[in-house]
Amino acid sequence: MINAVGRDIPEKVLQDTGMQVFQGAYARHNQTYKKAAPTVRGIVDPKESKMVDSIAEVLKKCGIKDGMTISFHHHFREGDYVVNMVMEEIHKMGIKDITICASSLGKAHNPIVPMIEDGTIVGIQSSGVRGKIGEAISTGKLKGYAIMRSHGGRVRAIEEGDVHIDIAFIGAPTCDCYGNMRAVGGKSDCGVLSYAVADAMYADKVVAITDTLVPYPNLPASISQVYVDYVVKVDEIGNPAKIATGAAKPTTDVRKIMMAEYCTQFVINTPYFKDGFTYQTGVGGASIASTISLGKIMKERGIKMGLGLGGIAGPMCKLLEEGLIEKLVDTQDFDLTAIESVAKNPNHYEITASEYANPMNKGAYVNQLDFVILASLEVDVNFNCNVVVDSNGMITGAQGGHPDTAAGAKCTIVIAPLLQGRTPAICTNVTTVTTPGETVDVVITDYGIAINPRRQDLIEAMKDVKLPFKTIEELRDIAYSIVGEPDPVEFGDRVVGIIEGRDGTIMDVVREIKPYEFD
Amino acid sequence: MINAVGRDIPEKVLQDTGMQVFQGAYARHNQTYKKAAPTVRGIVDPKESKMVDSIAEVLKKCGIKDGMTISFHHHFREGDYVVNMVMEEIHKMGIKDITICASSLGKAHNPIVPMIEDGTIVGIQSSGVRGKIGEAISTGKLKGYAIMRSHGGRVRAIEEGDVHIDIAFIGAPTCDCYGNMRAVGGKSDCGVLSYAVADAMYADKVVAITDTLVPYPNLPASISQVYVDYVVKVDEIGNPAKIATGAAKPTTDVRKIMMAEYCTQFVINTPYFKDGFTYQTGVGGASIASTISLGKIMKERGIKMGLGLGGIAGPMCKLLEEGLIEKLVDTQDFDLTAIESVAKNPNHYEITASEYANPMNKGAYVNQLDFVILASLEVDVNFNCNVVVDSNGMITGAQGGHPDTAAGAKCTIVIAPLLQGRTPAICTNVTTVTTPGETVDVVITDYGIAINPRRQDLIEAMKDVKLPFKTIEELRDIAYSIVGEPDPVEFGDRVVGIIEGRDGTIMDVVREIKPYEFD
Repeated sequence: MINAVGRDIPEKVLQDTGMQVFQGAYARHNQTYKKAAPTVRGIVDPKESKMVDSIAEVLKKCGIKDGMTISFHHHFREGDYVVNMVMEEIHKMGIKDITICASSLGKAHNPIVPMIEDGTIVGIQSSGVRGKIGEAISTGKLKGYAIMRSHGGRVRAIEEGDVHIDIAFIGAPTCDCYGNMRAVGGKSDCGVLSYAVADAMYADKVVAITDTLVPYPNLPASISQVYVDYVVKVDEIGNPAKIATGAAKPTTDVRKIMMAEYCTQFVINTPYFKDGFTYQTGVGGASIASTISLGKIMKERGIKMGLGLGGIAGPMCKLLEEGLIEKLVDTQDFDLTAIESVAKNPNHYEITASEYANPMNKGAYVNQLDFVILASLEVDVNFNCNVVVDSNGMITGAQGGHPDTAAGAKCTIVIAPLLQGRTPAICTNVTTVTTPGETVDVVITDYGIAINPRRQDLIEAMKDVKLPFKTIEELRDIAYSIVGEPDPVEFGDRVVGIIEGRDGTIMDVVREIKPYEFD
Repeated sequence: MINAVGRDIPEKVLQDTGMQVFQGAYARHNQTYKKAAPTVRGIVDPKESKMVDSIAEVLKKCGIKDGMTISFHHHFREGDYVVNMVMEEIHKMGIKDITICASSLGKAHNPIVPMIEDGTIVGIQSSGVRGKIGEAISTGKLKGYAIMRSHGGRVRAIEEGDVHIDIAFIGAPTCDCYGNMRAVGGKSDCGVLSYAVADAMYADKVVAITDTLVPYPNLPASISQVYVDYVVKVDEIGNPAKIATGAAKPTTDVRKIMMAEYCTQFVINTPYFKDGFTYQTGVGGASIASTISLGKIMKERGIKMGLGLGGIAGPMCKLLEEGLIEKLVDTQDFDLTAIESVAKNPNHYEITASEYANPMNKGAYVNQLDFVILASLEVDVNFNCNVVVDSNGMITGAQGGHPDTAAGAKCTIVIAPLLQGRTPAICTNVTTVTTPGETVDVVITDYGIAINPRRQDLIEAMKDVKLPFKTIEELRDIAYSIVGEPDPVEFGDRVVGIIEGRDGTIMDVVREIKPYEFD
């Protein structure tokens, strides 16, 4: 069945999953649903301790068994030890058919690949995957479908009951004996625990895993004791050096600086650029450069940002400190500056992933965005973006908050250099659709800027602005004229991955890569 | 059927309600249940405003209709305008058969009595009632049963689905246009919104009512935008003069000072009185006097309280400021000192009612209590307490956190002057059981102290302590020898109220007062 972004979703996938095809970014507007709920236990004996000696023991206490769904968060990023630590014990116990529902997975989790191959793990649900896990999925090693969800879409899936988490394992930089978890402090400080809150609220069993036990009560708790069954202390939950890096140096890439300058000029010429505006940006070189150049103009014109949101990096914290941003709401910290800021700056707040981006709650923060500045691997002439599958067909990225912020913001700007090496970023059809073009307003490349024709208001606002505006087709044509039209990826037939729209429908599928191509 | 505190619960009540009789404070230990869940709507249009012009309009938007259950919180105490404001509109619309599920109701709500009489309101669920509402219930004016729940029991009832809230009306001292509510600031500052959090999370529709609209986002929010459907701004949500009073003057009543001294001596001679202990007390004269006298000894001995919790009043805040308490967790503010403290002192934290006292979550704060100091209208020779029904049979009090803290604390101390005028506080059988004797460890009167024989460990700990220990029967006999054994209240047959145990079973019933007695 063809969906609203023109992708043909195989009947077999619809039958296997019971899912619907994507029908438009706001097609589920005002649909009512009964929220999911966990099965929990009471009355807890007031004298009962929640401390458990080891991962192995807590798995037994939680009743781990074949076929369960277990969850993890990715706030430790490439420094995470928790996923491997838990999966190793599950593997030792000979448990099979596990589905991992993680907020994201990265190269740190390469050690679970053999468990995919031997059937310990049969399902992966994640914002994205990288490295060996992506290869394993793309080459058909995973028995079930890999489901890629946006950050908002993951909470939605949990709250709507599309996924039911049997046991949530939550790595906590600090925790007390009764399960109050904080991201701040400890040996593996990660700033916030936003993505894990839904897991705590909706999983049947919740296990806190920490390397830093602190006196009771550990307040203000990111995750409260009332959701936590057990607490396990281990030696190390992460590698601090890989959790957060130092501040990224401002880019010296002239293409990126030029695109950042285009972006800033675009932003300041929209009607949304006024005192109190709301803004989100990513951590790519061009995004960070545009934050810096926007900050200069804000200072010159005396315009303050009311609210900055999303995953937070140093440059936004600097603007907060300088008083150019009034408040930051934070779901993820990309560097040490951000981690320090959320711990110390009273105007820098942790929010949950549901508050950030869930489309099926009563109004997430993304709905209040004036601007979001995003990157993309590919953008097609319908403004559809691909942030998950590389142009060779390999799963290697993550949806993150891309579709969520695009759907919420009044002005969604995607920055992409026209060519990534020999690969055109602007193309006729993206390899895989992750963010629907109807939610993307502007594409900025180093060869020109295209405004989505759906946004005549923005085209009108820019009519006297001196920027190199082009149509999206013109940008594609320039790209193709330089490197030629790329051959389509030759996929196999088998569907290995599902790109889930944030509303729970199927945006696209990812097919197996033909072995000859991979070898 | 006779329950575990010896009360005969009529079959009709069991049939009408489908409830079970109380079988012991921990009888439901480790029972599993699936949590309740609301029916909500998504996807919200990012451009949609949540602001609604009037209570009347918001009632229509929420689809108010006959038979609905609506909820309120009582953080504005006797200064609350919200209940009357909403009920007046519902009454005007001619809606019938409404059940009010409030965290508590007081004399401020006397204006709803005519709505009980005319069938607008047919059910009341509350921690307690006072004044005219109590009279109306006790004299049989309410069509259905009034259900009295503890603070923890109310959250349990909501989370287990015993009560389903159709529309929650949440008065918010400050709110932004998207529904982020705070208790701090504004014209009707009430400190915390703890009791309303479950309403926001479990009601189908949630309406924020404020008199102080503030810029977006109102952070840190006690209740988040993601739970809120609509925001209504009105002129005044409360009368600040009645929300919080100035600090209570220390009592000069020698009986109370003596009981406070007994209490302190008891506390410091238990094994639980050591650095880092956890403590809760009420706002009665003797409780406050005991906090002050305990503070002196803590200072002398260099012993700090690790955590103070519950409803908070000035004396606890003073100990926090002096460094004698490390942290306070707060569900209700009784005076201006407490309201100022929670706004300004970084070691004074707001917690939710579920975190405070819900018996059916994975571990509430009451479970961590070493001591709770409580008051009681009556205590019987089985240590059962009555805090809801006066000895004339009229409903006139509230369960509050009494049964919750008693069940959680390692040492539950009840202070009651032996005689309240001509009424003995220690008696053979309490008029109504609200807190089961198995959870009450010590009763302190001005005529002596009784330790529950179940607590041989405490009896042993006190064997060399010079305090006037007596058996509970001896205390009762002294009381009866002075004022005589009181005649039992002559109730009618009809059951008008149910005292619900915190686990959702029936602790006791309250019968109609015979008209001749009331007139």
